[in-house]
Amino acid sequence: MNNLLLVVGAGALAMLFSFWKTSWINKQEEGTDRMKQIGASIADGAMAFLKAEYRVLGIFVIAVAVLLGFANAGRQDSSSLISLSFIVGAVASGLAGFLGMKVATKANNRTTHAARTSLAEALNVAFTGGSVMGLSVVGLGVIGLGGLFIYYSNLFGSDADNINTVLNVISGFSLGASSIALFARVGGGIYTKAADVGADLVGKVEAGIPEDHPLNPATIADNVGDNVGDVAGMGADLFESYVGSIVGSMVLGASILAANAFDINFVILPLFIAGSGILVSIVGTFMVSVKEGGDPQKALNIGEFGSSAIMIGAIYFLIQSFLPETFIQGGVSFTSMGVFYATVIGLVAGLGIGMITEHYTGTGTPPVMSIVKQSLTGPATTIIAGLGVGMQSTAIPILILATGIMGAHHFAGLYGIAMAALGMLANTGIQLAVDAYGPISDNAGGIAEMAELPAEVRERTDKLDAVGNTTAAIGKGFAIGSAALTALALFSAFMVQTGIDSIDISNPMVMAGLFVGGMLPFLFSSMAMGAVGRAAMAMIEEVRRQFREIPELKAALAVLNKGDESTWSDEEKATYEAGLDKAEHGKCVEISTQSAIKEMVLPGLLAITSPVIIGFVFGAETLGGLLAGVTVTGVLMAIFQSNAGGAWDNAKKMIEEGVVVNGEEIKKGSEAHKAAVVGDTVGDPFKDTSGPSLNILIKLMSVVSLVIAPLIA
Amino acid sequence: MNNLLLVVGAGALAMLFSFWKTSWINKQEEGTDRMKQIGASIADGAMAFLKAEYRVLGIFVIAVAVLLGFANAGRQDSSSLISLSFIVGAVASGLAGFLGMKVATKANNRTTHAARTSLAEALNVAFTGGSVMGLSVVGLGVIGLGGLFIYYSNLFGSDADNINTVLNVISGFSLGASSIALFARVGGGIYTKAADVGADLVGKVEAGIPEDHPLNPATIADNVGDNVGDVAGMGADLFESYVGSIVGSMVLGASILAANAFDINFVILPLFIAGSGILVSIVGTFMVSVKEGGDPQKALNIGEFGSSAIMIGAIYFLIQSFLPETFIQGGVSFTSMGVFYATVIGLVAGLGIGMITEHYTGTGTPPVMSIVKQSLTGPATTIIAGLGVGMQSTAIPILILATGIMGAHHFAGLYGIAMAALGMLANTGIQLAVDAYGPISDNAGGIAEMAELPAEVRERTDKLDAVGNTTAAIGKGFAIGSAALTALALFSAFMVQTGIDSIDISNPMVMAGLFVGGMLPFLFSSMAMGAVGRAAMAMIEEVRRQFREIPELKAALAVLNKGDESTWSDEEKATYEAGLDKAEHGKCVEISTQSAIKEMVLPGLLAITSPVIIGFVFGAETLGGLLAGVTVTGVLMAIFQSNAGGAWDNAKKMIEEGVVVNGEEIKKGSEAHKAAVVGDTVGDPFKDTSGPSLNILIKLMSVVSLVIAPLIA
Repeated sequence: MNNLLLVVGAGALAMLFSFWKTSWINKQEEGTDRMKQIGASIADGAMAFLKAEYRVLGIFVIAVAVLLGFANAGRQDSSSLISLSFIVGAVASGLAGFLGMKVATKANNRTTHAARTSLAEALNVAFTGGSVMGLSVVGLGVIGLGGLFIYYSNLFGSDADNINTVLNVISGFSLGASSIALFARVGGGIYTKAADVGADLVGKVEAGIPEDHPLNPATIADNVGDNVGDVAGMGADLFESYVGSIVGSMVLGASILAANAFDINFVILPLFIAGSGILVSIVGTFMVSVKEGGDPQKALNIGEFGSSAIMIGAIYFLIQSFLPETFIQGGVSFTSMGVFYATVIGLVAGLGIGMITEHYTGTGTPPVMSIVKQSLTGPATTIIAGLGVGMQSTAIPILILATGIMGAHHFAGLYGIAMAALGMLANTGIQLAVDAYGPISDNAGGIAEMAELPAEVRERTDKLDAVGNTTAAIGKGFAIGSAALTALALFSAFMVQTGIDSIDISNPMVMAGLFVGGMLPFLFSSMAMGAVGRAAMAMIEEVRRQFREIPELKAALAVLNKGDESTWSDEEKATYEAGLDKAEHGKCVEISTQSAIKEMVLPGLLAITSPVIIGFVFGAETLGGLLAGVTVTGVLMAIFQSNAGGAWDNAKKMIEEGVVVNGEEIKKGSEAHKAAVVGDTVGDPFKDTSGPSLNILIKLMSVVSLVIAPLIA
Repeated sequence: MNNLLLVVGAGALAMLFSFWKTSWINKQEEGTDRMKQIGASIADGAMAFLKAEYRVLGIFVIAVAVLLGFANAGRQDSSSLISLSFIVGAVASGLAGFLGMKVATKANNRTTHAARTSLAEALNVAFTGGSVMGLSVVGLGVIGLGGLFIYYSNLFGSDADNINTVLNVISGFSLGASSIALFARVGGGIYTKAADVGADLVGKVEAGIPEDHPLNPATIADNVGDNVGDVAGMGADLFESYVGSIVGSMVLGASILAANAFDINFVILPLFIAGSGILVSIVGTFMVSVKEGGDPQKALNIGEFGSSAIMIGAIYFLIQSFLPETFIQGGVSFTSMGVFYATVIGLVAGLGIGMITEHYTGTGTPPVMSIVKQSLTGPATTIIAGLGVGMQSTAIPILILATGIMGAHHFAGLYGIAMAALGMLANTGIQLAVDAYGPISDNAGGIAEMAELPAEVRERTDKLDAVGNTTAAIGKGFAIGSAALTALALFSAFMVQTGIDSIDISNPMVMAGLFVGGMLPFLFSSMAMGAVGRAAMAMIEEVRRQFREIPELKAALAVLNKGDESTWSDEEKATYEAGLDKAEHGKCVEISTQSAIKEMVLPGLLAITSPVIIGFVFGAETLGGLLAGVTVTGVLMAIFQSNAGGAWDNAKKMIEEGVVVNGEEIKKGSEAHKAAVVGDTVGDPFKDTSGPSLNILIKLMSVVSLVIAPLIA
């Protein structure tokens, strides 16, 4: 057990690495005064949102902690410590989001500045920013889980009799992480899309000014949104997956018999795999480096795939040293090699789903080209094509998932399914670094535009952004695959904790649960989309108001819309300059913040209260049906929405970069382009709000069930 | 048993009634020569499609019949008779579609002619046309099922030992009905939407000519499509539901013990309920009559709700006379009153779902108004709002369904669930009459337009069409609710026939099946939408070609686009007249026909082969998981797609009829109107192709499983 200090040590190492990289980022140049000013506005806006969000979440955390303590008080000595775990999990999740966003907002304009010199340097800054995010997430996860496990083991004991108490209390950590993650994802998703739609529809379409232009009052909010949604939201999301997969495999590990006895090694193996993943991720970050003129895509691939290969070796070594050669689970005998195979199946499945994701959403692929072609006949056919692509894109990932489930279970039972999920997430550190690098580059481009830097800077950041796409698609595959497997692992853990040994679909109570569970992702998505719609509407009205009521802004806009800058008179130039800092960005930031905070509450509560109500009113079996239903349609809707959104997005980008269909180039500003913009706008809440939130939803509901399992058993 | 001849007699009565009403329709006036000509073109086109479709389906039916015979040959004496049932079911389904369409194409222009005189007479013709459809469907269903049951009972015996053989062989009838229904729905749906989109996008939007104008080459195809998709497709659909619910309850009835012994009455009760439903439906048709100046909506409501009330009484009487006071199912004791309560629960649930459907899709309801409002900010927000409305609209129907399942099961076990479905469908005769009345009125309007009749005729038919909407929404609720319950009944019947007594979700094989099953409705929908897209594209190209290559058509179009007819010179008038019959309608009819036939094959085969492959490769439990998955997401996707499509449709209609938002009227031809048209076009394949097909898909897959159950047991 003392070895577990090694795990916590690995977590501490990750945090040290993060601090070191943060201080490196701090030392980089920030660029011109205008860039500094923009950077500061974005950073302030982002922090203002986090503060407002955390204030609401603080109340939520305290309320749930009290409820948890109260509900568990009578059950067993100290089992109300689950409240402590919950608070630690929530705080750790919040802290991961905070640290990631803090460094991301710093890395944004430093990446812009670096892009003034070279692509390689810009990559370096952006990726370093991402790696801080990645390693904070895994570091906090491992320290929190490892620390609590050591503490509770000492308190309760970690033998066969007490391990379930320890694990139940620890599941509170996962609950804290998941609930904060859901709110962060939903809130961040609403924020970013409201700002985005507001900036686009009024600024670009109505007022005819370019994206990210300083005259557009919503641009700062738009850029804050990218940090809030894509960075902080994603960080909380992966923190939650990571923690969930570890907890799920620990609980299932506790139900294993080796040599007819409980074996603690099955429980702590997941922690060690996570700890080793940190070391591998740190090694991986050093693999990502590109010389001037080198290929940045290759650099990222080497980092991600290289570290995956090392990870497989590490997992093999750990399994061989921790697990006995054979063991019994659910009456069936398995081998330690089987556990290894299950893990590899998980990795391969994640990779496969990622490649399919890339196929359905990547630039120039046949599905995306089909949307481009349909844009020629207008927005209706563009939408139909995109919906079709999204729905079709569920098929192969689900077949991969189904095969993976059967394979992992064949080799190592339920423990195998949990380990397959953990295998995908073991090197989350570097995966998240690559994921977070994308939005940082994207924002760097926005700042270049707002600071009116030369076009080549924006071109470099755009290239940087595009480069990460394939790697990010693979990451998305891992996120979806691991979410499904983690939900199943937590679901199985729930069954272990309640002691029910079958959930029979032919029981109408279970079937009813299945239907209601299946419906929840639809309801949840509609709530998320409705929220984005309302928030965007408020933003649209505010931007319109500013254009109407601020005379300097109106005058500057009129000059801008005259076109070619070289024809402006000196007076016109002066009018334009005078308008540049008149847009009231702060008001837009505030509107997005208020809307997001207000609108995240209802979908969040739906997710948390449904399992509680169903569980207490209808019992564990119906709740099991509910979880199965929510998992199946949640995964399907997540894939459908994310991929439809991704495909529309890239179809639009292809047209904007110039694409030839039937021998004719589709021009920017043409009807086909407008149709593609409609597709992209519809896809925005799909891929950035409801789609990714569903990944969290399915795990959160499983975790809630796992936490209340002893109470409804 | 001889009483069963009464049931067959009721079926024969329905057919006599249909023939009587058909001859009445035949005797009605057809109107002007132009109307006759248009009517003939539509009738010819519709028959050409049916012929082409039935030729392909004929091959399919023979192939499946041979396979079924082959697969069952070794199993038991004469059990290859299942092939016979299959053929009878397929032929009966085809015949129902044929008879319904034949009379509908006749009723179309006779309704138009009647509308030249009065609303009441037009209602009478249209409703009579619908009632022929309704009573042919139930008549053929009852004759087929009743006849086969009598025949097989005499052949095998109908005691406890042989009843399962009888029922298994009879399930082939349901398979025949379901597979033809799926092809008819998918093929008809593709046909009608390809023609519709082609006519709208090129004719209305590009060429700027009004809907249903004779210069548009796709109008005849469009009107054929309404008959093919909305009438024949719907007829086959309800035939399938009707038969499925009867077969499902018969199989479950066979597993019941009364006084510790098998009781045939549980098996034949569903047939008697269906037979009595025919009498009730005939009575109901006489309740629908409206005096000049009376309210047609009230007339339809009296017919539908009045007959429902009588039906409840009939069911009560039948249950009391057929069933013993108490009985045992699955080890639990139930009462005959419980069976009655379960039936009533089904009726109430169907009514509830129908009311929710009306709430989400009806003209002027808050959800539809929300789409109207979002149309002010363009097509993107219109689409997002509609998708949101569709997703949200799944919530309450699913809760109703879940409650209904639990309630029906509480009162009468699995038999109760089947009887709840049967309760909804017992008076299909009159429900279908009301449903089919809608498209007949709609087509009558199209003919009025094409024949250039005075505007008041079109106004009357439009009013007629609108009147049936609420009643049709209730009918849709019954269709969805009964589809879910019938699928569950068939699913339970499948379990009875395979002899497995639990389908445990915690078994990863079942979970894998659940995932794959859940995915199929997404894949199926994407196929259907892709097919509509391709077929519409072919139609668009053909219409464009005609406008380009036929000089008279081009010239007439130019005149039409000049606007106000009173300003035309005599020469222009002559040019216009000369163009009127130059559009090559036949080519468009052919393109729709060919596309529909070609494109219906793949989705149809997906539905039929998936359960066979999963069943034989992975066994009965995994197949059970597959069925549960397909049922849950199938119902959800069906509600989502149908309601989103319906809401967009009515949002567009509201704008076209003039609606005031924020104190301003949205004008026809405005940007908001265009956005609403985009919504409607996206909704078309949703609500008329993939949505309703999913209702059949879930039952078809259950029936396929039921048929192969003895082979994989």
